[in-house]
Amino acid sequence: MSMSQDFGNRTRKDDDEDRKPPPFEKYVQSTFAEFIGTLLFVFVACMAVSARDVLSIAFAEGLCIALLCAAFVNVSGGHFNPAVSFASAVCGAINPICACLYFVAQILGAMCGASFVKAVILGDSYHILKGGANQFRGLGVPYDPYDTFHHLNVTPVTAIVVEAILSCMICTVYLQSNIDKKSQTSVGPLAYGFALLVSIIAGFHVSGGSFNPARSFGPAVPSGYWDQQYIYWAGPYIGALVSGVLYRLVLGDGKKRLIMRD
Amino acid sequence: MSMSQDFGNRTRKDDDEDRKPPPFEKYVQSTFAEFIGTLLFVFVACMAVSARDVLSIAFAEGLCIALLCAAFVNVSGGHFNPAVSFASAVCGAINPICACLYFVAQILGAMCGASFVKAVILGDSYHILKGGANQFRGLGVPYDPYDTFHHLNVTPVTAIVVEAILSCMICTVYLQSNIDKKSQTSVGPLAYGFALLVSIIAGFHVSGGSFNPARSFGPAVPSGYWDQQYIYWAGPYIGALVSGVLYRLVLGDGKKRLIMRD
Amino acid sequence: MSMSQDFGNRTRKDDDEDRKPPPFEKYVQSTFAEFIGTLLFVFVACMAVSARDVLSIAFAEGLCIALLCAAFVNVSGGHFNPAVSFASAVCGAINPICACLYFVAQILGAMCGASFVKAVILGDSYHILKGGANQFRGLGVPYDPYDTFHHLNVTPVTAIVVEAILSCMICTVYLQSNIDKKSQTSVGPLAYGFALLVSIIAGFHVSGGSFNPARSFGPAVPSGYWDQQYIYWAGPYIGALVSGVLYRLVLGDGKKRLIMRD
Amino acid sequence: MSMSQDFGNRTRKDDDEDRKPPPFEKYVQSTFAEFIGTLLFVFVACMAVSARDVLSIAFAEGLCIALLCAAFVNVSGGHFNPAVSFASAVCGAINPICACLYFVAQILGAMCGASFVKAVILGDSYHILKGGANQFRGLGVPYDPYDTFHHLNVTPVTAIVVEAILSCMICTVYLQSNIDKKSQTSVGPLAYGFALLVSIIAGFHVSGGSFNPARSFGPAVPSGYWDQQYIYWAGPYIGALVSGVLYRLVLGDGKKRLIMRD
Repeated sequence: MSMSQDFGNRTRKDDDEDRKPPPFEKYVQSTFAEFIGTLLFVFVACMAVSARDVLSIAFAEGLCIALLCAAFVNVSGGHFNPAVSFASAVCGAINPICACLYFVAQILGAMCGASFVKAVILGDSYHILKGGANQFRGLGVPYDPYDTFHHLNVTPVTAIVVEAILSCMICTVYLQSNIDKKSQTSVGPLAYGFALLVSIIAGFHVSGGSFNPARSFGPAVPSGYWDQQYIYWAGPYIGALVSGVLYRLVLGDGKKRLIMRD
Repeated sequence: MSMSQDFGNRTRKDDDEDRKPPPFEKYVQSTFAEFIGTLLFVFVACMAVSARDVLSIAFAEGLCIALLCAAFVNVSGGHFNPAVSFASAVCGAINPICACLYFVAQILGAMCGASFVKAVILGDSYHILKGGANQFRGLGVPYDPYDTFHHLNVTPVTAIVVEAILSCMICTVYLQSNIDKKSQTSVGPLAYGFALLVSIIAGFHVSGGSFNPARSFGPAVPSGYWDQQYIYWAGPYIGALVSGVLYRLVLGDGKKRLIMRD
Repeated sequence: MSMSQDFGNRTRKDDDEDRKPPPFEKYVQSTFAEFIGTLLFVFVACMAVSARDVLSIAFAEGLCIALLCAAFVNVSGGHFNPAVSFASAVCGAINPICACLYFVAQILGAMCGASFVKAVILGDSYHILKGGANQFRGLGVPYDPYDTFHHLNVTPVTAIVVEAILSCMICTVYLQSNIDKKSQTSVGPLAYGFALLVSIIAGFHVSGGSFNPARSFGPAVPSGYWDQQYIYWAGPYIGALVSGVLYRLVLGDGKKRLIMRD
Repeated sequence: MSMSQDFGNRTRKDDDEDRKPPPFEKYVQSTFAEFIGTLLFVFVACMAVSARDVLSIAFAEGLCIALLCAAFVNVSGGHFNPAVSFASAVCGAINPICACLYFVAQILGAMCGASFVKAVILGDSYHILKGGANQFRGLGVPYDPYDTFHHLNVTPVTAIVVEAILSCMICTVYLQSNIDKKSQTSVGPLAYGFALLVSIIAGFHVSGGSFNPARSFGPAVPSGYWDQQYIYWAGPYIGALVSGVLYRLVLGDGKKRLIMRD
């Protein structure tokens, strides 16, 4: 279950693919890439809340994942999301040691990124934006521009279901287009980013649109805004688990699928 | 007319292309991919209606097709639309058995996706959005922001014409950029998604912008909103048929074109 | 100066590249592709004016060119714009016979596409939108949302200059990313479409943002709205000529550049 | 440290990669490409300010860089930004002579592009837009649509920090996805453009969103609007330096990384 064989090494020559990556690249470089990538992603995501417009927030977060994944897909896999790392580990794309290192790097990166936001948006403005934290029902951007007090009828449970379904889509798209031997494609990083983008448009007014425990945990630490934090851990991990199971049972290529191999 | 030879197996090595896919991958995996993909697409499309803004809806639906097609183009062809499956069958890209299996999977997936919407958007909100169903003249989003009672002058017949012309574009782009031996390209899945995106912007205020019978049938079942349902079956199938005929007569590569082969 | 050698046949195998295309593909198929593509593009562009929002119009037109070019770049080159065909002919990417056939096909396609708009948008609505024609200063979408009577200070001459500069960008991007042996890339069709997209955002409030004589001529015929039509012919052709000259003198690859060849 | 070996020559055949580029292509063509590209970028960026909407400005600037980089990545590297050229020089992707030539070409191109804006937007309109110059706190586009006098609490120092962090992201993405032997990908130019796009959404209301000294210096010359110009030089260069150091120490491929080589 060597990491270098499971990545989307699409641009490397065949003789390169078989080389064993040195431990520095396999553990240090890849973990650092997850740290710096998650830091930048959370900084962008929290700053983008200042745009106060669902489409701008969706583009900022979705395209940020697309570009970071394009930059680092051959270095670390380009997850920047503990749920996606979990799904990758379930599918055997990264080994469990890497998954743990990635988790720590992502959480630390998210906290650093969110702290930078506190450092640059001063006083009242920071608290009005709640530090860029995800908010149940996407408070802060009215659902109906013609009636700003109107909200969708949802509950925390339905928010978890929405986070789970859409996280399942994000993880499935990541696995199919970046990991799977049969399906991987050079536009895979864009597909992964677009998955976040459309999920935010679809889920913003229900759950606030996180789909990433690190993105929700990061700003909660410096801002102290912990409301409904459990939504953003339960939903994405349930979705990632379902996605990993579907991949192992039906959707995976002949090598990763556990049943009906060829 | 083997399925595995007609797909856009662009990233596989040449010796892989000739291997006969096992029946599990050819029928079960591909049909399941259409089911899960259509489920996710219809869920996203119906949830996105809550954004109440044409550009957001167009991006959510268009990019969702782009990312799902990128993920599954080498598994099932990545249709998620009975009209596109019909056009593919007319062009010989999938065999008739697959086309029938796909149709059933897409309709079931759309109903499941739309039912999840009913499960998470509660009470009044669900009925105000009419379950995310396509609506003639795109009711719910005013055409003219300065005069919200003003509508484009259209009739159900012109809505069918608009659905047909734009569905013809969507199917032609799908066939050229994902199936055709001469034209297929690694950005084909993006082109297919962009085709839906621009069609929604262009047609939203006329027909509501469906171009996909499954996307319109799905939410009609749980919401009971069946008005003008025939528009979304007649238009896309007429467009798909025209697209298939044009491909067979003029636009296809030397092998698929029925006349003037080389 | 064979057409098949100059196209971006990036996905074909090397032994395919040398085959001489049959005359049917070289002349009939490619000209028909330009006809049907320009028809669809003009239909989408004119319908998109009903969105009454610069960003929506820019996305509809820009992404439409991107997807059509992705679909047809290996068939006809994917121009859908007489100015781009002119620049391609100046650079030797298509032969003069093809350029003339393309011009006729593009003009006829644009008229057909614009006529379909008249057929589906009835009565008053069609005339309020002026059939989707380009309009000097982008009338119909206010420049300043806070002061809808305010306009940018421009004249027809500055509109021609803006059309010329931005058309030069569009043609240069098309030539570099789709034709040039050294620079062509698989994302070339997207780059060509994005060039139109950003040009519309930048130029909409000055010239209305055409950059394409066919897109402006088409709707003028059925709508009878001919004001400032000369802007949309002078600007794009001047830009295309400058772009072709720059390519021949400096930017072209070793074979197409006329000076300092290697 | 030959330029031709370090570029993303992904589409050229292997035997081409080893050929030494003629001096004309190595110095004259590449410098001219940076000149014309920066001219077009600054023209588009300054014109786009007339859209008065953050998302439109972000798309115009971000996609403009994406398309210009796609067109010129194999000619000059496709920087159009002195900070990115500086980072590339630090990483050994271009030699110092090229970096100096590029700097001069970019500054001259930016001044020419901004002068064209002054030529086409007449009188008052030009001064109301301040020539399209970047403005601290993104003045001209209200932060809060419901309270147009409300601003984010920021200071010039926090603006420099925001410019530095986001410029670091832009340079890192450019280096990883276009230069790095292990990570470069065919969607690299899109990733570079998306990096600017998301940075503008995230930073617009703080610093005005430049991340490019040439884009800020260009319009300052004809418009005479020099306020806070130092922000747009200090921020991007600090970010580029950090990005180059991280690349040399941790993120670079085996050849460019200075420590722990394989």
